[in-house]
Parts: sequence; C-alpha cells; structure tokens
Amino acid sequence: MLTGMHAVEFIEKKRDGGEHSPAELQKWIAAYVEGAVPDYQMAAWLMAVYFQGMTPHETAELTLAMARSGEVLDLGGLGKTVDKHSSGGVGDKTTLVVAPILAAAGLVVAKMSGRGLAHTGGTIDKLESIPGWRAELSDETFLRQAREVGLVIAGQSKNLAPADGKMYALRDVTGTVPSIPLIASSIMSKKLAAGARIITLDVKVGKGAFMKDLEHARELARLMVDIGRHAGREVRAVLSQMDEPLGRAVGNAIEVREAIATLRGEGPDDLTELSLALAREALEAAGEDPGRAEAVWKSGAALDKLRAFVAAQGGDARVVDEPERLELAPDVFELRAEAAGVVTELDAYKVGLAVLRLGGGRERKGDAIDHGVGVRLAKKVGDRVAEGDILATVFHRAGRGLEESSQRLKEAYRIGQRAGVPPLILEVVA
Amino acid sequence: MLTGMHAVEFIEKKRDGGEHSPAELQKWIAAYVEGAVPDYQMAAWLMAVYFQGMTPHETAELTLAMARSGEVLDLGGLGKTVDKHSSGGVGDKTTLVVAPILAAAGLVVAKMSGRGLAHTGGTIDKLESIPGWRAELSDETFLRQAREVGLVIAGQSKNLAPADGKMYALRDVTGTVPSIPLIASSIMSKKLAAGARIITLDVKVGKGAFMKDLEHARELARLMVDIGRHAGREVRAVLSQMDEPLGRAVGNAIEVREAIATLRGEGPDDLTELSLALAREALEAAGEDPGRAEAVWKSGAALDKLRAFVAAQGGDARVVDEPERLELAPDVFELRAEAAGVVTELDAYKVGLAVLRLGGGRERKGDAIDHGVGVRLAKKVGDRVAEGDILATVFHRAGRGLEESSQRLKEAYRIGQRAGVPPLILEVVA
Repeated sequence: MLTGMHAVEFIEKKRDGGEHSPAELQKWIAAYVEGAVPDYQMAAWLMAVYFQGMTPHETAELTLAMARSGEVLDLGGLGKTVDKHSSGGVGDKTTLVVAPILAAAGLVVAKMSGRGLAHTGGTIDKLESIPGWRAELSDETFLRQAREVGLVIAGQSKNLAPADGKMYALRDVTGTVPSIPLIASSIMSKKLAAGARIITLDVKVGKGAFMKDLEHARELARLMVDIGRHAGREVRAVLSQMDEPLGRAVGNAIEVREAIATLRGEGPDDLTELSLALAREALEAAGEDPGRAEAVWKSGAALDKLRAFVAAQGGDARVVDEPERLELAPDVFELRAEAAGVVTELDAYKVGLAVLRLGGGRERKGDAIDHGVGVRLAKKVGDRVAEGDILATVFHRAGRGLEESSQRLKEAYRIGQRAGVPPLILEVVA
Repeated sequence: MLTGMHAVEFIEKKRDGGEHSPAELQKWIAAYVEGAVPDYQMAAWLMAVYFQGMTPHETAELTLAMARSGEVLDLGGLGKTVDKHSSGGVGDKTTLVVAPILAAAGLVVAKMSGRGLAHTGGTIDKLESIPGWRAELSDETFLRQAREVGLVIAGQSKNLAPADGKMYALRDVTGTVPSIPLIASSIMSKKLAAGARIITLDVKVGKGAFMKDLEHARELARLMVDIGRHAGREVRAVLSQMDEPLGRAVGNAIEVREAIATLRGEGPDDLTELSLALAREALEAAGEDPGRAEAVWKSGAALDKLRAFVAAQGGDARVVDEPERLELAPDVFELRAEAAGVVTELDAYKVGLAVLRLGGGRERKGDAIDHGVGVRLAKKVGDRVAEGDILATVFHRAGRGLEESSQRLKEAYRIGQRAGVPPLILEVVA
C-alpha cells in the first residue's frame, strides 16, 4: 500500500516530468481503487499528467494496471474473439452491422457494451428497441451463445476496470479529460479487461467527435494500437470523419432499421463503407482473408447471423425481415429548407442534442429513454436543396421536447452555395 | 455558490493559461471554505496553477479572497501597527529582538504567532521557555497591552484566513507546495487578516530555507510586497542567507538567552545585523527615521520594552537581566573536530533536525516540546578549527535522542581548507 508520503513523491515525479515504473503505476492504481489514495491526490496527479504527458511505455503500463483493477474476462477457448470500440458519435450504428459480418465470417464477437449518455447513443439502447431482446445474460449463457452463435452482446454487468470508472468520473469534474494518454488508457483498459484477442477501434474525428483534428486522433490511435500490442492483442484503428452524423438515421429503433437495411445492401453509402472497412481490418488482424467481409455481407450470411443473434437473446427475429415492426414514435414534424442551395454543414453534435431532447437519450445515468423517437436526415452535406424541401423528419411523441429539438436541428444545418465533402475514412493505423 | 459545472470551467480556464477575475477568485475561495468545492477540484486547480502560474494582479486578488475567508483583525486606532514574518529558518529568533526595538521606537507590534513544526522553531514556543509567560490572551487584554506596552504576541487563536489553512494542508499532500504565487498568497493572506498596516518580511534563501536560490526568493519577495501594496499595506522584504543557522543558539530557552544578549549588544554579529536591518526597514516603511532602530537598541530602551512585555504576559521579567534563569537541559555533550581546518559548511536543516530529535521541536502538531534542550554552535562557517576543538555543545536530557542528534550535527559540519562566507543580507525589496 502507498503511504501518504509515497503518494506525494509519486505526484511530484510526474509533476517534474519523470517516468513512472510499471511497479509504481500498479501500486498507485491499486491504492486508488481500494481508497488508500484519495481523490484529491489522484486529481493532482491527473492534472500533472495533463501537462507532462506520459511515454508510450508508461501509458501501456498504466492501462494494464487499470485493466487488472477488477475482473478480467477469460475468453480463451472461444477461438478468434474480436471486440470493437467506437470513440463515440452521432448516428453510429456500425456495431450492429460489423458484428454480424464478423460472426458470419467466422470470428467470435463476445462483447460487453454500454448504454448511451448525453448526445451519443449506446448499442445496448439501440438493441433494446427490438421487442423481447435482453441485455442481461448469465456468464454461462454469454459463453454458450458465443460458442453456438458466434455473436453475443451483453450489458456491462461485470466489474471491468473499476479504476477507469473511478478515474473517468474524477477527470470529468477536474478538467483532466482532454489528455491523450488518459483517453487511450481509459478506452484500452476496458477493452483489455473484456478479453478479446482482436480489437478494432473506430476513432472519430471532427466537430461531432471528441477528437477535433486528425493529428491528435492519429496520435491517440497510434497509442491505443501500441498499448494493445504491449498487452498481446491485435489492434487496428480506423480514423473516420464525424463532422456530420453517420448514415441518415439518429435515434434507437430508427438506427436499428438503418443497420438492417445496410446488411441488406440498402443502407446509406457512408455507413456501408465504414462498416465494411472496420470488418476488413478485424479480419486482417485475425489473419483471415479481409475479402470475406464483403462476401458474407453480399451473400446474406451476415443478415442470417443477425437473425440468429436476435433470437438467441430473446428478441423478435422477425424485425430483421420486417423492420417496420421496430416502432417509431407516431408524431411527425418535417423541417424544411428556408432557401435553396447546398448543405454545407450538418453539425453532428446538434443533431445528437435534438434526439436527446426528444427523450431518445439520457441526460443522466439511469434515465429511461424512448426508443421510438428519432430523426431521419433527408439531406446531408453536399446534397442540393430547393426552398421548401424536407431537410429532416422528426419522430416525436406528442410534441415532447419538439420545440428545442427542432431548434437544434435547424441550427445543425447550414445551407450555402458550395460544399466540399471530406472523405469518410481518413486513415488506418495498424 | 459555484455549481459543479462552473468549478470545472474555472479549473479549465487556469489549465489553459487564462487569468481569473477577482469575482471568480472570491467565489472559488468562498465555495472551497464552505465545502461546495471539494478537495479534488481544488487539488486539480492548484496543480494547474503550479504549471500555468498567476499574474501579480491575480495573485493579489487570490490573497485578498483568502484573507477575507475568515476573521480579519481590526487594529485601527492603535497607531502604526507592524507585523513581521519570517519564511522560516533554523535559529531564527529575530522576532524576539526586532519586536522590542520597534515597540521602543514607537511602533505598535500586535502580533499573532504560530508554533513550530518539523525542523523550524516557533516564536511562541521560544517565549514559553520564560517561566509564567502565556500566549493565550483575551481580545480585550490583547488590545489593551498593544495600547499600553506597544508590544503583544499571542498564540493564533483566531480563525484567520481559514482558506489558507485548508489549502496549505492540501498542497502539502498533492505536490503543489513549490509554486511562488501559492506561497506568496499563503503567507500574505494570514498577514493581511492579522491587520497590521506595516509588514516586514524576512525571506530566507539557501540550503536551510524553503527558497534555495536568490532569483526565486526575489520573485517571491517582489510578489508579496506588491500584494501588500494592492491591499493598502506597506511591505518591505529583506532577503537573507540561510545556508547555516542564524546566530549560535538553536533550541528554545537557549535562543531566548541569545536574543536577550543581542538586545544587550552582546549577541552574535549575524543576528544583530539582520535584526537591525529588519527594524530599519519597518521604521522606514512607517515613515519614521530608520536610525531610531540602532538608537533604541544602544540606549537600552529596547531591552526595557522586552522586560515590560514579558511582565505584561505574566512572565518572570528577571530573565531579561539574569538569562541564566532560563533553564537549559542539564546534560551536556560536546561535538569535537576530528581534523583541523576551516568550517566550510554548516547545514542549517541538519542542525534543525538535531534539535528536533532531542525533543526541542515537534514531529507532529500538538506534540509537547522540551524547552531546555538545544545546541550551541561554537564554530560557524569561516571559523578555523584545530583537531579536538569543540564544534558544538548539545544540551540534552538524559541522552534522549542524543545518538541521532549528534549524528545529524556531525553531518552538518564540513571542514575543509578554505571557506567563502556569503553576505548575510542579500537584498531589500520595497
């Protein structure tokens, strides 16, 4: 255990630009989780890290210490297990497309997933718009489904990387969130604890993302790939643009509908492109032919896998063939263009807020959400519009939150004369 | 009151190099004292200040906010009130010399003083070696003695600058002590709350001091003088050397003996020089003739004032004329030179530790201390020694702590061939 004096020396070392040893980091994190290092000492250290940074090796060791602070899942014997993480975006339903593709291609997707907070949605919330589908699985069911179906997604019931949960909550209230080594260790500690051998990271860059510029996103991606390698995992990161939302659907049921459409080959180009790219990277990292991603997508094998997955977790698998069974909120508002031109901007963050205000997301942990509300974006960046054209359709419930929501949505759109559409996939870091 | 969100924005502002407004600082400190800002947020902010610094104006406003966080003494109507602060040293009994000189010269010294901790002594502890003398005075007695005697020194019973107490304790355990704006605001907030119009600062520089080099000590002094001016006070700072202890006595009773000798004109040169310099600065700051310092010292008026002061606070005033009434511990150990040469170093910090180990200081707040133990330094830097000469005499009680104490003392001395004796007074900042 760290005594008070040692804790001060540890903080001073980082303050003065020193590099912590693996043993020091291990003790520091263990002492923090057991309460021997109080929040105020951790807060001072986090701010020192903000200013002094950490070396890649130090960051990797911090991540290992955080990963080992709680349960570490053992997915051994399940074959080529794969996990996917997205750094958070608006309209990001790629997991619902990528996971069935990978499972159909022979990998095992055995994943714990979180719920959404603030303007970004969570995979579990989206899946819960499928009637009967449940996220709570026993350990036994989880492992059996992984073996039998090759695809299981459960709510995070385990005490995975508790150091991260505690540190993240503290960073949030001490101005120490935007530090690349701290972001990397936070993401990777959970992924390492979750046990998969192959990890695919979707690092979002742009106005609607946490990383605003390519340079920093690249640094973060590089660091996370190296942390994974240090821990004996195969990691690939895809840097993708997140100025505007991904796809045309933002909400819960409406995003599941779009994911199903994408698996049928009828989805929006950006979602299709990114999903296939992520799947290819995962397959390549697993030593498989990356071309299988497109093959199982085109053959319908991925759609079959989605059907089996939904059924295995108690959901109504008919939604896969009849997506209209995923109910949308009954009331509709149409946002129309006030002038002609081209959509030059569609602010992902504001679209996310629009859905949050309708009740489709959570202001606070534990809030109930409305799976039926959402937005369909008729026009995206680069699209021509005439005056009076529908820009977006809002699915709301009896006007709840509609006024602020439509206001945010209106602000999200910028109509001008000319739009440059940036590439969706910016880079792959391996 | 600061809400959670505002606190984070406040921390981020400093983290990003911004300057806080007076109103922001006022709210921040008030919220911290009342518990609305938790320690972990203050700790993150303190570390951000460590890295980003504060402007002089910002530091002055922080200091005012801290000074106003508790009681502020009203010494109005008492005339030219003066306070003195020393940044802490070993063998530093200047207050016992300077205060009677200033009172004899017509200023009013109405001072709250602290107890010692670790290797440095406190004025109250030293005075308590005088039989009968007491530090606990009612408000009424404190003010009456200030008016009638012109000299009163009481233990700090008031809730002065509680923000400082809370912040200092936190800095101590979060690696945020060595920040010049934070040091300056800590010292000056207490001095401002203590109410005197004139403030004399003795800033120690060197191995035995908190400030190790002249450049930083000068910066600290400049900042404190400007903070005082900003608050409408007259402040002077004397930068003095603290590589070796001040004077030849270190302990409690033994230091009072040396202070009395100094007021009689029989004290060591360094203590006499520094005490007169501090007194001259205070008189000049008060608009009085600085020459009066030497005049009242030579005339015996300062010694008379000490006698009156001791008596007023219940002490046996005979000690002023018969200092042997201040009892030293009965057992004596003599540290002798193992080789001939010149004393090239006498480490003040180690001498302080030697006295601490004898029981003459406190390891922890609230520890009882032995007023009789101490050290008399027969040889100081620049003194020639022959083999077997007495370097120092240790007054101990039945050997308690003697072994470690004499070891520290031995380490404190370095004997070589040639010694440069640095000037005692390095600079005055006004």
